[in-house]
Amino acid sequence: MKKAIGIFDSGVGGLTVYKAIRNAFPSEDLIYFGDTARVPYGPKSPNTIIEYSLQNARFLLQQGIKILIVACNTSSAVALPAMQTITDIPIIGVIEPGAEQAAKTTKNKRIGIIGTEGTINSEAYPNAIKKLIPEAVIFSVACPLFVPLVEEGWQDHLVTELVVKEYLTNLKMQAIDTLVLGCTHYPLLSKAIQQIMGSEVTLVDSAMAITEYLARYIGSESDKQQGSSTFYVSDNEEKFTQIAERILNDNIKKLIRVRLYESWFQN
Amino acid sequence: MKKAIGIFDSGVGGLTVYKAIRNAFPSEDLIYFGDTARVPYGPKSPNTIIEYSLQNARFLLQQGIKILIVACNTSSAVALPAMQTITDIPIIGVIEPGAEQAAKTTKNKRIGIIGTEGTINSEAYPNAIKKLIPEAVIFSVACPLFVPLVEEGWQDHLVTELVVKEYLTNLKMQAIDTLVLGCTHYPLLSKAIQQIMGSEVTLVDSAMAITEYLARYIGSESDKQQGSSTFYVSDNEEKFTQIAERILNDNIKKLIRVRLYESWFQN
Repeated sequence: MKKAIGIFDSGVGGLTVYKAIRNAFPSEDLIYFGDTARVPYGPKSPNTIIEYSLQNARFLLQQGIKILIVACNTSSAVALPAMQTITDIPIIGVIEPGAEQAAKTTKNKRIGIIGTEGTINSEAYPNAIKKLIPEAVIFSVACPLFVPLVEEGWQDHLVTELVVKEYLTNLKMQAIDTLVLGCTHYPLLSKAIQQIMGSEVTLVDSAMAITEYLARYIGSESDKQQGSSTFYVSDNEEKFTQIAERILNDNIKKLIRVRLYESWFQN
Repeated sequence: MKKAIGIFDSGVGGLTVYKAIRNAFPSEDLIYFGDTARVPYGPKSPNTIIEYSLQNARFLLQQGIKILIVACNTSSAVALPAMQTITDIPIIGVIEPGAEQAAKTTKNKRIGIIGTEGTINSEAYPNAIKKLIPEAVIFSVACPLFVPLVEEGWQDHLVTELVVKEYLTNLKMQAIDTLVLGCTHYPLLSKAIQQIMGSEVTLVDSAMAITEYLARYIGSESDKQQGSSTFYVSDNEEKFTQIAERILNDNIKKLIRVRLYESWFQN
């Protein structure tokens, strides 16, 4: 049996990563898990994020996957080493691809990072970027209200503009030329973010960076058959379907709700 | 051994309920559980809210309690009947006390309810109020951004004023004289809410209403000894302590982090 690529996120945000992978690798089977029963991960502690990430990884491993994509920035920032202890298959988070892309993009080596509290506190992005450009100067800002604003559908609302301004005004003073959108929800606010930061700042979206990175592991496409797509969520199937169909501009054909603690009992 | 009053909430919001009970019943032992690892409950589905509420209730029952207070409006709105099947001790949610208070307060019988999506979709407040005033006219509005704004500490921020205005402008047109703050976080926004609604609208806070209700179950205080206070959280002890000490204006002496799935295995 053909093995799938597994992708998990704390909720719907990782669907932007799913979409980029689906477009780049049309013949691959993809399995997506959204932990909508415990979203958001951003404000939670490293220990809890690690626990949740291990449970999600185990669930996808049980489905038979050949590569695990951690679409959630917070999980990627905090839990990759823990997940690597439970499997030998490659595990790819969004931090390294995003850091590589930022390193390729910057000219003045002044880079901004925005993300959840969990991602920013972990310092995962600065650490990954400094491995590539040791002299880089990095400015990090946590933006806790961005996720709720996107979830409320207020991308183009005056309130969102004000919140973006409030979080990013100091960052704008730092003369960065590259800004990493370190949360899968943030690309949905890129218009407002670009407007505040100005056109001289390039926004880096990890979802876009990850497909190039992934190609190193799965090589070029030879199989011409259309790959299957399976979605699992831990809560709110209907809301998930609605948001997913809007993001993907496609019908969700196979969606299954799992009760996570059943999987916990198995382990 | 003296049995305690157990209180649970999805996070820190229920501390306003805890505080009201602590002040009204100083000699009672109180045990508070905040499910900070899975907060918020508001946007989650009824099935998931019921699962989480049952787990929280079982955990507190294991500690030996005589009364269970459900401080979370969303849990109270959705999960009381399910919790009543697993114990014979009294279980008191915040909906009935809030509804009673609203019914006592209103003169024109036009009442507004604001709360999370879970609370508003359940229609628990309208149903409870109509049992008391069948001819009441009730207007409900979900305000999903209020909780994240309070968690971010932006109570007095311009953004919060705008969000309050956006959610409540239509409600203001309805000539209500009473507005139920149907979420434990909302009293922290009462200044902004009162300003938009005008001084002719009375705000009802369930936390305040519950102590009067509770007195029917535990009678008058005779024991003069100071009761103990124990706090359990499922995540983020430090952040919880910080917020709790601010809300309670007192030191948290006994705080224990529990890993919820361990309790799940026991059941």
